[in-house]
Amino acid sequence: MGLIVAKFGGSSVASMERIRNVAERVKRMKDNGKDIVVVVSAMGDTTDDLIELAKQTGPELSCREMDMLLATGEQQSAALLALTLNNMNCKAVSLTGWQAGVRSDANYSKSRITNIEPQRIRQELEQGNVVVVAGFQGISPEGDITTLGRGGSDTSAVALAAALEAERCMIFTDVKGVFTADPRIVPEASQLPFISYDEMLELASLGAVVMQPRAVEYAMLYGVDVEVLSSFDDHPGTIITEVGNMERQRIVTGVAHDLNCTRFAIFDVPDKPGIAKTLFRGLADAGINVDMVIQSAMRDNRNDIAFTIEENDLHKAVPVVEKLVKDIGASGMFYGNNVGKVSIVGAGMQSNPGVAADMFEALADANINIHMISTSEIKISCVIDEDRIQEAVQALHKKFALDHIE
Amino acid sequence: MGLIVAKFGGSSVASMERIRNVAERVKRMKDNGKDIVVVVSAMGDTTDDLIELAKQTGPELSCREMDMLLATGEQQSAALLALTLNNMNCKAVSLTGWQAGVRSDANYSKSRITNIEPQRIRQELEQGNVVVVAGFQGISPEGDITTLGRGGSDTSAVALAAALEAERCMIFTDVKGVFTADPRIVPEASQLPFISYDEMLELASLGAVVMQPRAVEYAMLYGVDVEVLSSFDDHPGTIITEVGNMERQRIVTGVAHDLNCTRFAIFDVPDKPGIAKTLFRGLADAGINVDMVIQSAMRDNRNDIAFTIEENDLHKAVPVVEKLVKDIGASGMFYGNNVGKVSIVGAGMQSNPGVAADMFEALADANINIHMISTSEIKISCVIDEDRIQEAVQALHKKFALDHIE
Repeated sequence: MGLIVAKFGGSSVASMERIRNVAERVKRMKDNGKDIVVVVSAMGDTTDDLIELAKQTGPELSCREMDMLLATGEQQSAALLALTLNNMNCKAVSLTGWQAGVRSDANYSKSRITNIEPQRIRQELEQGNVVVVAGFQGISPEGDITTLGRGGSDTSAVALAAALEAERCMIFTDVKGVFTADPRIVPEASQLPFISYDEMLELASLGAVVMQPRAVEYAMLYGVDVEVLSSFDDHPGTIITEVGNMERQRIVTGVAHDLNCTRFAIFDVPDKPGIAKTLFRGLADAGINVDMVIQSAMRDNRNDIAFTIEENDLHKAVPVVEKLVKDIGASGMFYGNNVGKVSIVGAGMQSNPGVAADMFEALADANINIHMISTSEIKISCVIDEDRIQEAVQALHKKFALDHIE
Repeated sequence: MGLIVAKFGGSSVASMERIRNVAERVKRMKDNGKDIVVVVSAMGDTTDDLIELAKQTGPELSCREMDMLLATGEQQSAALLALTLNNMNCKAVSLTGWQAGVRSDANYSKSRITNIEPQRIRQELEQGNVVVVAGFQGISPEGDITTLGRGGSDTSAVALAAALEAERCMIFTDVKGVFTADPRIVPEASQLPFISYDEMLELASLGAVVMQPRAVEYAMLYGVDVEVLSSFDDHPGTIITEVGNMERQRIVTGVAHDLNCTRFAIFDVPDKPGIAKTLFRGLADAGINVDMVIQSAMRDNRNDIAFTIEENDLHKAVPVVEKLVKDIGASGMFYGNNVGKVSIVGAGMQSNPGVAADMFEALADANINIHMISTSEIKISCVIDEDRIQEAVQALHKKFALDHIE
C-alpha cells in the first residue's frame, strides 16, 4: 500500500471550517487505499500571536524558550485535525515532533533535522491510523523542543517522506502550483506540471517562494517527489522532481521578477588584490545580503563595481558603503532603488546556446535598457528600470512561448 | 540550600501583567537563596478556549487527543514565565511534564502520576536556573502526553515537592488561605495558620476547594508541607501539615456550608436484605453521587430512607428514583432542594466528646430545625432549611470561638 505524506500550511488550517476541509480531503485519500501521514502548521495567526505575547516579556527572547512556546501552535492544530478525523470515523492520532522521531540539532529557532526515527509513526500506520504530525519542530540531543525556522513544516514533511520512503510528498498551500510567471502580471501564465529541483531552487531564490528552499534541497538530496498543490480545490499541482523524471525538458521553465532590489555603484575602485574582499566582507559583517555583483572593465588601474541588495537593507547599507568607499580609496558612490530584476530559469539552458541572446533580443525589441546582467547554469537575470518590469516579464514569457505549457 | 516548589494557578498567570508579578515574586524567593521549581497552570481561559475549539470538531472527543491539545496551555505559560524571568536577569528554563520526568498512567484526561524522574530538574537547578514546569501533565508509558484532570497542577506541584524533597510546596492562588468559615457569610472568620491533611480533605469534600483533594491526599501520603497563600499579596497563608506538626490542636477548625444540596426521602421501604444495595447501585449506575444517607427506625418491617445528592443532579435523579421506588416496592417518594448542609470539622473532635451536643445546642438556640445528621471521625454535618444556612454558620462559628484563631 502506498504511503503519502501531505503537508497543510497555516492558511489551510486557519479555522475550524478549514480544518474540516483538510480532514475531508485526507479521508478521501485514506479511502483510496493510501497510508497517510499529515504534517500541519499552526493555525493562521497563532505563531504571530504567541510572538506578540513573548515580546511583552522584554527585549531578550531566549531562542530555547521561544521554541518551547511556538511549538505549541502546531501541537494544537495536529490535535484538532486528529479530533476532526475521528469525528468523521477516520482513525487518527496526533504526534508532536519528538513523538514522531524528528531529531534535530540544538540550534534553536533555526534548527536542522539530523535524522528521523520513524518507528512510532510506522506502528500507528500499522494500526490503521492516519498520523498527524506537528510540523516545524524537532527534539535536540538534550531532549529540548526545537523549531526548524520559517517554513520548517515543509522540511518536516519532506524529511518524513524520505524516512518513510513515501511515494509522494504533497505540499498543500494557497497557490495552485508553480507557474511560468506571476499570473497577476502575465494572465496567460501556465501552470507547470513538472519542475526540476534546481529550477525550483532558482525560482525560490528569485522570490517565487512556493515552497521553502531548504525543503527543496532536502527533497533533492533524498530524491523525494514533491507535489505543490492548492488545498482549496482538487486540481493537480506541480511536481518537483529530478530532471530525469520529467517527460520533456523545456529550455526555459519560467520568468521570475523581483521589485525588492536596490542597485549600488562604486566608482574608481583601485585595482589591487583584496579590495573586493574588504568591500563584501564589510557588507556581510553588517548583515547585508548582496545579490548580483558586476565589476566593469579596468581603466587606468581603476574599476567600477556595481552590486544589488534587497531594498529593505537600504537604510542599513548606505552608511556602511559610504565608510567602505573611503576605506578602499574609491572616488564615490551612487545608489538607487528604481530598479528591478527579471530572470529566466530553465534546466535546458545549459545545453542550448543562444538562450541569453534570445533574452536580450526580447528586451531590446521592447526597448528596455539593461543595467546589469548575471548568469548561472540554469538562470539569466537582468537588472532593468523598475517601471519596465511588467513589460519585460510579458515580453520574455511570449518570447519563450510559455503560455502553452503541457 | 533549601528548595521550594511554588505553584501558580490559572488566575495568577491570566495576563502578561500577572505573569510579571509572579516572576517578581519568584525572583525575590530566588534572591533569598532558595532553589525554586515553579509549576504553572494555563493562562486564564486558555483551557476553556481550547475545549471550545475541540467541541467544534464533533461530539466524539478522544481523551488522548484532548490531552495533546490541552497540554499546550501549560507549556505556553511555562515558556512565557521563563522568558519573563530571563528578562529580569533571573536565569530560568521551562520544561514540559515529560521533560520534568512526570510519569503517569495512560488514563487520559484523569491520569495519575506514577513516579517522578527528577534528574533533568536537578541538573537545571545545579546550573542555577529557576525551573518552570508545565503543570497538569505527564507522560504515559507509551510516550503519550497525559493530563491529570481538573486541578492537576496542584498534584504536579506536590508530587514534584515530594520527589525533590522540597522544604515546602507553596500553592499560590486567589484566596489568602483556609478560613474558619466563608468570610462572605461570617465577616469575623479567621485565617487558619495551620490545618491538618484530614481536616483539609473534609473541608474540600464540603465544598471549600482551596486545593485539589487528590493533591492533599498526595501531600499526606508523602508528608509534604503545603502552604496555600495568595499570589496577590505577601501575607503568609495556611500550612497544611500533619496533626503532629501543628502547635496546638483545635477541637473545631472550621465551619463549612453547602447550598448545592437536594434531599430525597423514600417512604415505606420493605425491610429485606439487598434493598439498599438495589437503591444505591441504581443511583451510582446513573452517575449520581449520593452524599448523606439516613435510614429511619423500622416500623412494621418498613423503613424510611432519606439521602442527599448534588442539586445539579436533580433532573437526572428524579426518573431514576421514581423507577427504583417501584422496583423495591416502596410506597412513595418526596424531594426538595430548599435545604443546605452545615458542617463543623476538626481533628480534635475525636478525643472530645460533647462536640456534637454543642453543635445541636447552637442550632437549637438559634431555633433552627435539623432534618438530617451525619458524622465522621472529624466532621459533623446537618441538613437544615436553606434559608437558615447563614444564621447557622454564624451561630456555630461563635459557639466554637473561631473568630480568634492564632
